[in-house]
Order: sequence, then C-alpha cells, then structure tokens
Amino acid sequence: MNFEIKHKDAMGRTGILTTPHGMIKTPALMPVIHPGKQTLDVKKFGAEVVITNAYIMYKNDDLRAKVLEEGVHKLINFPGPIVTDSGSFQLSLYGDIDVNNKEIIEFQELIGTDIGTSLDIPTPPFVKRERAEKELEITIERAKEAFEINGDMMMNSVVQGSTFHDLRSKCAEAIGAMGFDVYPIGAVVPLMESYRYTELVDVVMASVKNLPDSQPRHLMGAGHPMVFALAVAMGCDLFDSAAYILYAHDDRFMMPNGTFKLTNLVEMPCSCPVCSTHTPKDLRAMNKNDRMILIAQHNLNISFAEIRKIRQSIVDGSLMELVEQRCRVHPYLLDALRNLKKYTAIIEEYDPASKNSAFFYSGPESLGRSEIQRHLSRINRIPPKRNLLLLPRSRKPYSKNLHDEFGKFYLKHVKGDSLSDPQDLWDDLQLAVVDVPFAVIPLEIDEVYPLAQNEAPIITDEDAKKFVREEMEKYMERFDNVIISAKILDRFNMYTIELDSGNETSKHPIRVYSLEEYELDAVKIDIEDREKINSIADYQFGMGAGKALFPGDVKIVKSRKTGKIRHIYEGETLIATLRATDSVFVLDREGARRLHSNMEYPKNRVVVNTDADPFAREGKSIFAKFVIDCDINIRSNEEVLIVNEKDELIAFGKSILCGHEIMDFNTGQAVKTRKGGI
Amino acid sequence: MNFEIKHKDAMGRTGILTTPHGMIKTPALMPVIHPGKQTLDVKKFGAEVVITNAYIMYKNDDLRAKVLEEGVHKLINFPGPIVTDSGSFQLSLYGDIDVNNKEIIEFQELIGTDIGTSLDIPTPPFVKRERAEKELEITIERAKEAFEINGDMMMNSVVQGSTFHDLRSKCAEAIGAMGFDVYPIGAVVPLMESYRYTELVDVVMASVKNLPDSQPRHLMGAGHPMVFALAVAMGCDLFDSAAYILYAHDDRFMMPNGTFKLTNLVEMPCSCPVCSTHTPKDLRAMNKNDRMILIAQHNLNISFAEIRKIRQSIVDGSLMELVEQRCRVHPYLLDALRNLKKYTAIIEEYDPASKNSAFFYSGPESLGRSEIQRHLSRINRIPPKRNLLLLPRSRKPYSKNLHDEFGKFYLKHVKGDSLSDPQDLWDDLQLAVVDVPFAVIPLEIDEVYPLAQNEAPIITDEDAKKFVREEMEKYMERFDNVIISAKILDRFNMYTIELDSGNETSKHPIRVYSLEEYELDAVKIDIEDREKINSIADYQFGMGAGKALFPGDVKIVKSRKTGKIRHIYEGETLIATLRATDSVFVLDREGARRLHSNMEYPKNRVVVNTDADPFAREGKSIFAKFVIDCDINIRSNEEVLIVNEKDELIAFGKSILCGHEIMDFNTGQAVKTRKGGI
Repeated sequence: MNFEIKHKDAMGRTGILTTPHGMIKTPALMPVIHPGKQTLDVKKFGAEVVITNAYIMYKNDDLRAKVLEEGVHKLINFPGPIVTDSGSFQLSLYGDIDVNNKEIIEFQELIGTDIGTSLDIPTPPFVKRERAEKELEITIERAKEAFEINGDMMMNSVVQGSTFHDLRSKCAEAIGAMGFDVYPIGAVVPLMESYRYTELVDVVMASVKNLPDSQPRHLMGAGHPMVFALAVAMGCDLFDSAAYILYAHDDRFMMPNGTFKLTNLVEMPCSCPVCSTHTPKDLRAMNKNDRMILIAQHNLNISFAEIRKIRQSIVDGSLMELVEQRCRVHPYLLDALRNLKKYTAIIEEYDPASKNSAFFYSGPESLGRSEIQRHLSRINRIPPKRNLLLLPRSRKPYSKNLHDEFGKFYLKHVKGDSLSDPQDLWDDLQLAVVDVPFAVIPLEIDEVYPLAQNEAPIITDEDAKKFVREEMEKYMERFDNVIISAKILDRFNMYTIELDSGNETSKHPIRVYSLEEYELDAVKIDIEDREKINSIADYQFGMGAGKALFPGDVKIVKSRKTGKIRHIYEGETLIATLRATDSVFVLDREGARRLHSNMEYPKNRVVVNTDADPFAREGKSIFAKFVIDCDINIRSNEEVLIVNEKDELIAFGKSILCGHEIMDFNTGQAVKTRKGGI
Repeated sequence: MNFEIKHKDAMGRTGILTTPHGMIKTPALMPVIHPGKQTLDVKKFGAEVVITNAYIMYKNDDLRAKVLEEGVHKLINFPGPIVTDSGSFQLSLYGDIDVNNKEIIEFQELIGTDIGTSLDIPTPPFVKRERAEKELEITIERAKEAFEINGDMMMNSVVQGSTFHDLRSKCAEAIGAMGFDVYPIGAVVPLMESYRYTELVDVVMASVKNLPDSQPRHLMGAGHPMVFALAVAMGCDLFDSAAYILYAHDDRFMMPNGTFKLTNLVEMPCSCPVCSTHTPKDLRAMNKNDRMILIAQHNLNISFAEIRKIRQSIVDGSLMELVEQRCRVHPYLLDALRNLKKYTAIIEEYDPASKNSAFFYSGPESLGRSEIQRHLSRINRIPPKRNLLLLPRSRKPYSKNLHDEFGKFYLKHVKGDSLSDPQDLWDDLQLAVVDVPFAVIPLEIDEVYPLAQNEAPIITDEDAKKFVREEMEKYMERFDNVIISAKILDRFNMYTIELDSGNETSKHPIRVYSLEEYELDAVKIDIEDREKINSIADYQFGMGAGKALFPGDVKIVKSRKTGKIRHIYEGETLIATLRATDSVFVLDREGARRLHSNMEYPKNRVVVNTDADPFAREGKSIFAKFVIDCDINIRSNEEVLIVNEKDELIAFGKSILCGHEIMDFNTGQAVKTRKGGI
C-alpha cells in the first residue's frame, strides 16, 4: 500500500502505486466500468486499474446482493485494482442521494474495493463563495469521519473548493494532513466541458501545491487525451475515462489533438488497429452498436497510447516539450499553458536539475520553463567581476565556436587600444553570450546542462526579445563596465539602450562594438580551466563551492579524445569528476569532505537517522523513510551530501527526489548513494 | 493520365492522380521498394503507389532480363501504379553511372513503368553557384531530350538548382513549360538530414511557385512524417519513403514528433497494431530481422496515418493548425514555419476564401497566415467614414456581445455630451473591434468568415500586440477622428500612442475613453442592416459591390429563429442570400446580373469558351478545360460570375479552384455552377 516515484519531469512523475490487487504504473488511465454492464475488456487495451461506482451497486438490489456475495472484482470481472466512487457524482447531478458517508464507506470495504471514496460534496465552479465554504466544511468533516470509520481499505479523499483557490488550497492541506492514499481533485468536469483550461490550471495548482507529494493525485473526470500531458506536468497521476464509451455512443473519436465526429471524417484519425483496418465509410455503414464498440476501442487505444507517450516523455525529460505541443491544439489550452507560467517558481522546485534530453524552445511559453528561471537564479552564485563583454550567439557550446567573434573584438579593441584602458578591462573581464532562451550565459559554464543542450529558432519572437533584454539588463547591474556586441542590440531590438561611451558618472558606461571583417587569424577564447571549474562548482553547489573544493593547486586531467576537463585532483587525490554529458561535477570522497566542511548546514545535505547510518557508510542507497531532515532546496538529480544526525558526513550521492519529496515520502529511494566509507 | 484537385487548404490540396495502373489519392506516400528484395506487402499499410529504381534493374543482368520479360509490376509484385527513379541517386552517390538519359528512359518505358524519370543531375545544397548553374543546364537539357524521346509513359521531371532560389525558380519554369506529368523537387535530402528546414522552405517555395498548379509535386526523399504537413502546406503532393525500412534497420521508430531509438524506449510510441501488442522489452529480446520487420511496420503505420491526417485536415480546412502543431516538435522546424511567413502573399492566392473549421491561433506564427493578410487587405474595400470608434474584444460575434461596452461609451460620451460635437461624430462613425489575430474588425462584417470563426488565447504574446498595434495604426490613417477604448491601449501596450485630445492640427485627434461601471440599461449596438449588407458585399466582391447589388430600396428577410439576415429582395426579386455558416453572400440571378453590369471585366469572372456556353446556361458545372480567361484574383470557394467570350453573363457559381489554377488546369471542375439561365 504505497506509492513510489521512479522518474520525474516538471511536476510530473512516473511511479508505482501498490494496491491489494496489484501494482499500477502511473500516470495511469482508469476506464470507468458500469457495474451492471461491461462492454469491453479494458485490460486488453492496457488498463491496469479500473474505476466503478459503489453507489450504483448499493442502490440496485440485485447488484447489491451479488456484489456483497461475490465481491466487486468478480462482479465486474476485473482481477486488478478497482477504485470505487461514492455517489458524489450522483449527488452533484440530483442534489440528494440515499446513502450517508458511513454507509457508503462500509459498503465499499465490504465489497472488496481496493481504493474507496468518502462522500464529498462536489461544489461546481463559479458558485457563490458562501456556498463553496459551507460545502467544503462538510467535505472536510466527512473526510475526517471516513478516516475514522475506515479499516484497511485504501482511501481517496477529494479536494473541493470550487474555483476559489484559497479554498482548494485549504482543503488540500486539511485532507492532506490526514494521510489518505490517493487525492482526487474533484468537480473540474464543468471547467473542462466549457474549455476553461486556464481556470483548470489554477484549480489544479492550488490543490497540488498543498497536497502531500507522496500520494498520487487523480484528476477526476479528466478522460480526454488532450489534457493528460498538461495535467501530468502539474503533478496529476491518475485519470478516469467514461469518455471513451460516452464519446463512442455519439460517434466521436477522441484524439490528443481534439475530437472528431464520424460524420465529418473522410479518413480514419490514427494508426490504431481499428483505424488501420476500417474506413469512415465502413463505420457509417455498420449498425450502431458494432460501430460504437469499434470507436470505443479506438478511444481506448489512443488514450492509452497517450498515457504511454507521457510516461516515456517523463523518462526522457521531454514532458514540457510534449505539453507545449499538446497545448497548441486549442487556443484555450494555449491560454492555460500561458497561465501556467505564474507557477514556474513552484514547478522549478520539483523539476530535475539534469535531464536526458535537450531543451527545445517551442514559442514564448517556453520562456516560462523552470530551467530558465533556475539558470537565471543560479548565475548569481558566481562571484561578479568588474567588466562584462556580451557576445552574440554562435553554435553551441559557445566557447568552442565564438573564437572568430571574440578575436575580432580582441584585435580591434584590446590590441588596437581603442578602449580607454584595455589592459585594466582585460584583467577582470566576464565573457558571456546573450541568446534565446537562457538570456545570459557566462562562458565558464556554457557546457553545463542545459546551456549547451538546447535549441531555439533563429528567427526570434518578440517575447523572447523582451525577456532577454530584461534579463540582460538585470545581469548588467552587477558590473561596472559593460561592452555589448552590436549584433546583440540588433537581434534584440535594443534601440532604446543608453549608448554611453564616456559618461564617467554613469554606473554602466556601455560600449557598443561593431564587428567588421578581419582577415587576420582569430584569437582563441581561452577561459582558464581554474576559472571554469570554480564557476561550475559555484553554479552547481552555491557561491563559495568553487573555493571550497579547489582552494589550492589542482591537477586538471582532460579527455584525450575530446579535450574536455574530466578529473580534478589535488596531488594524487581525486576531488571531483566533470561528467561529460552535462558538465556537472560528480564528487569524490575528498570533494564531498571539502564541500561538507565549507557549506553550512543544511546546504546540500540529506540527513539520515541512526538506523540508516551504517548502511549509508557501506554505500547503500538512502530510502526516504530514513531521512529526518534535508536541504529543502535540493532538486532531483543533484549531487548531495549524506550526513547523520550529528551532521557527520557519512556518504554522498545523487538525489532521486527533490527536497520537498525527500521529506514527505516514506517509501522508495531518496538518494542513490555513490560512495560511503568517508 | 491526369491530376484533379478535390479539396484545398493553404497551398495544400487533396487530389486524384490517374495512371495506367490506377488512381492515386494525394497527398500520397510512395514506399520505396528494392527491385531485388521486397520485405513487406506495403499495400496492406495503405500504399496505393510505390517507387522503385530503374537503374538497379538495368545494371543487374538477372533483374534486367526478368523485368524486360515480365514487366516491373510482376517483378516487384505490385499491381498498382509504379514510379521509377532513373539512377540520379546513384549518380549523386558515386559521381558517375553506366547509362545515359535516352537509355534509361527507353528502359523504363519497356518495363512498363507508370511514371518514369529522366536522368537529372542532383546538385547538392550549398555548392558554388557556377557548379549549380552548369549542372542545371544539363538537367534542363536532359528534360527536353526526355520529352522528345518519351512515348506514352507518364514522366517525372526533377527541379534542381541547389540552394539558389533563382535557379530553382528558373528550372521550375523551364521544365514546367514542357508539360511533364509530375514534378519532383530534388536534392533536398541533405537539407532534411541536417535539419535545415528553413532552407528547405525556401527551396520548395522557389520551386512550387514556378511549377504548374495542374501537376503533382513530389518532395524527393522526404520520408519522415515530421515534415509531411509542412511540405503539403507548401504544395507538395507526393512523398517517398525508404526511411521506413532504413530506420527500422537501425531500431528507430519514426513519429510525427520525431525519431525514437528502441534502446531509449520504456513504452511503445503509438497506438498502431505493432505498438499496442508489443513492449520495447519484447522487441529487444527478438532476433534482429523479426524486430526490423515490426519496426518497419510501425513506421509504415504511422506514416500512412499522418498522410490520412493531412488529407482530413485539408478537407476540414485545418491544415495550417496541423502544420503549426507539427512544427513545434523541433526548433528548426519552428524556424522553418517562421520563415514561411515571407511567402504569405503567394500562399494567400491559393488559400480558400471560406473553410469548414475555425481559425485557431497557436502562437506568433499564426499571425503570418493568409486569412489575416486577406482580411487586412479586404477591409480597404469598405468605403471609409470620417470617425472611428475602436472597441475592445468581447465574445464573438462581437456585434452581439459588445452592447455593454458600447452602451457605456454612448451614455457617457454621446448622451453625456463630453465629446465636443457628439452628434456630428455619431453621424459618420465606423465601429470596429480590435482583437487578436485579425487586428481591426469593422462591426458590419464581424460575422463574415473567419472573423467570428476564430479563437486566440486571452493572454496575448508580444508579437500579437505589436502586429495589432501596427495594423490598427494603418487602419486609423483612413479616419479624421479616432476614439480608442482605454482597454485596447492597455491590452496592446500602446503607452507610446500620442494621446491627443484637442490638438486641432493633428490628423488624428485620438480620444481615449475609460470604461466605468454603469448600472443603467445598456444601449444596444444597432448596425443598420443596410450598412451591413453593403459592407459585406464590398468586402466580399470589391469596393462598390454593395451599391451595385443594392442600389435602391431592399427588403431584408431575417431568420425567425436566429434573427440573422437571410435574403435580400428588391420588390419580389431575390438578389442574394447571406449564408448562415459564414455570412457570405450567395448570389441569385438578379444579384449576378447587377454585379456583372457594375464590376469591370475581368473582375469576379470566369470566361468559358463557345463549347461550354450552352452547358453553363443549363446550370452544368464548369470544367477547367473550357475556361479561356478569368479574374486571376479569384480564390477557391468564392462566388463568381460565369461569362462567355463576349462577356455575356450566362451563369454564376462557386469557384473550386483559384484564379491561377483555373487557368492552368485542363482537368476537373473549376466552378460549381449554382444557376444558369440568365
């Protein structure tokens, strides 16, 4: 009876939910099964869990007798995990039902439900606040009661609160604290039916950010594959679909890019077994029921394919790329994606520090991604210099491809003496590239993920221009003198910048240089290795980490093949290794020791209890349940220090979960230990 | 042996290509079949046509003897149309081959090829201009020779010219004038392999705009479903895929959103029969050949599904929506889409005037769509007034939902006398809404397609703001006085507009009004029906059309159910009907007569020859081959006049093709006649 995270991306996660009748891979789609009539064998389409309605069984005398005798698994002929709903849906339809909270919970337990549900009040969107508050009180009250009544059954507790974000948050916090197994987010169907995806984002985010990270969340009534990716990126794990059959009844094909009516089709919409063996004409000629079954099969095929695609994209680290594609299918979904930008700070806390795939810019919405916000915050960890030279984009990594550009600058201005005090400028000069989408990239760290692992169109949109201008101006604040390539001003429409060339009173005497063609050999950009490793360490672990790790003379070993920095030694002692794929430091024992003694508690630390201490020392991985404290700013896929209660360094490794999750989870791995025995 | 267009969208078209071995629905994917070894029965996956290599058969003694005896259809066991390539590919690989142009053409004819190919020189991208010019000369020479040698075989003639747009255009024009059956665009594989889609767009557009509209174009070597939609939108009709098998050899799955290596897969990528019955683990455990066949099947499944999806989207009028989704899958494809914007004026000429689906805004790229350019050009057909009141967006149609907004303005400024000369302003006032993406929408025409049939996100990107600002300023030029709602200034960041409230010398004394809450009953916007029908007619047929159609008193009949204008009579004579779906006029006989006598030749006309005259008078539809002249500015799906050589009006109808196509085609319908007998 637990939930364990396997992979993460944005706020999405793949995981395993264990129930009495087996394990469920999440994100998962739960087909809705009517307890009286099952049309399709949903297992064949990939269903590992189904949802059915306890109230329908409770109300129907025959079904009730039968299910009480043989159990719900036999009744609906599904051997795997079964979730039951409580009748809240009927309550929302009819205003009143013939069962109370206690009765329906006990009934669900009696029939052998895997995950039961209490009788919450599904308050619709946009009601008066008074009503939402009053109904929420009952919902929370019933959740408490449910928790007390319930025996061993796993339990849902539904987040309500209409479209009042504070009420959603309050509810999530209240029921989240009680310790249920799954948290559905309820009463959002009217939002989806009216394409109010922007409000859906607000409701989901207000709920999810206050729910425990350690339990799955179920976006109730979300059965259209169009919204799965976005919902997963916001932290939803479970979906239910009655839509596959309801749409089929109405001759409608669901697709991740919308809904298609059979009457308008000249071609079948997908590659599924139904679509690749029939034509729209075939289907139109069939009898209603045969056709309905085939369309329902298509709807299941495409819905499960979308769930698989989402899982794959989480493993690949390309979930947001998928979300940004999916949200183009309707302008209101695009609006929702644009609205998601305001939650970047929250999403950033969950988004892994390093991923398997490159960052792809798909439009202005990509500017809201957490990778960018994180970068712009982390560059402040690198100690500022006095002078700044901003260079235009080139192929990546920039430091390998900007020689010409830089050489021209050097020849003209430094050698050519056109700068007032070239040598002085030269001595404390920060080189940085200005580009979309990461705005300002100091050249020392230009190979760190995702600064070299990203692509954006060359034709730049106005939002990107504005964003880069603003971030560039913020960055420039840190320097006394700034020199900007004219190419940058041109690309980013910086016509309004104050082009000051001699004003001594100005804080930023900006010099603009134009590039002309030189036939001379280019001067190579030569970022000193020492500076590079210090900057990367600061950027990765926090300001001062570079000095902490590499205080004295170091020996830098480079790859013979690529010329890239690989290992940093002091004498014969390995301190850290720069990983080739993402130019991030992997510590060795000495590096961990140095970081530990120089960075203040709890920075970079995961604290394990006494029980786990000996295992960690042996290099065994750290399970979340043994963690008693940690640096809440740890992100997934970061190098972390493992300490005991006395803050003694006992091991180090890579975080699987982020700080919040490490603290919240009691199951699964928190840190993959690299080495113990320190 | 002909090509006929069925449906159109952007520059894309669905059509039927007739060959000696049957008909091909286009856009079509032609799997490449090796003449010596056929692994899969591609018919089963939806292939109606295949392509194979004549040179391989010619060179191999066994194959040559066999194919000369039994013909190519028997050799490769494919009963449908077969296209053969000439050996140019081998030429591009090895620099030299053992056959000349004449020999390979005659060979293709002997073996019964449906569509043969001459021996062009595939000049790669980015070569020196001199080489491109020299090789192009040979290519064109050989095309001429091929045309002379060839008997009855249908023939390809390949557009070359490397990445020199003028050479591509020159080649297209030269070979286009010779009258081949299919025009491949060659030597673009290196562009696709290096993701240079921006250059691909330039090469394809330089070719297509100079090729005949009446023959299909084949984008040679384009076998990845990622590019199909974009290529079709630029006017490509045929694709070939060796990729399905080559990728499979390399354990790679093709998807419309990229390529996925089996080794990285945790889930199968689509809903096809292969993906829904296997796991990546299953495949990895198989022997290489079995696995290769399954992946090739997936590749075919997904590629044909994409082709079907594209055909459907052309029929639906949502091809650009699909293109805009597909181009998000890689930033370089997005760059290509952004580059496509410079061809809007060309695409607009082909894009139908009315479509079955709404215009969906998916990002700044949507601002480049032809619907917008057309609208902004056509609003100039409506005679300007003296004063302009710009209102903010509302739900659509605006004129039905802006009562409150307008009422507030009216109450405060007109009634309240805060305008210097309210009654004067009132008398010659143009009401218009400012919104994304159509910028300025005069309220008289706000129900005309696509001004009411479009959606855009409420959260507005900077490109849209800039675009709307610029177009709004252009529109304002036409008026003496302009009043703008403060909401518009706010939404579109018009902080820099000159807010002039009394400067008599300024051409545009812009008044800004702020909206406050009024509890009073709103004044209804009452666009006069007369003004509405005049404006719509002008917007649809050209300036003056309103006066021409409705010079005197008219009787306007409205729908009892919707209250919308339906029929316009003068006395008992029906002049025109306003179609409910898109608020566009469908003429009746009297309307056609009036338009004809008031609009100068060749405006709105399709001229048929003497042979067709009697048929047109009977109301029979007009086939392209009978058309001798037409208004080149006619778009598809427009109401047009049908006249004879003496410019006598003989019928009227709806254009199937656009002006260019009507002139170029000799097959298929050009105009669907509504009524003859005038």
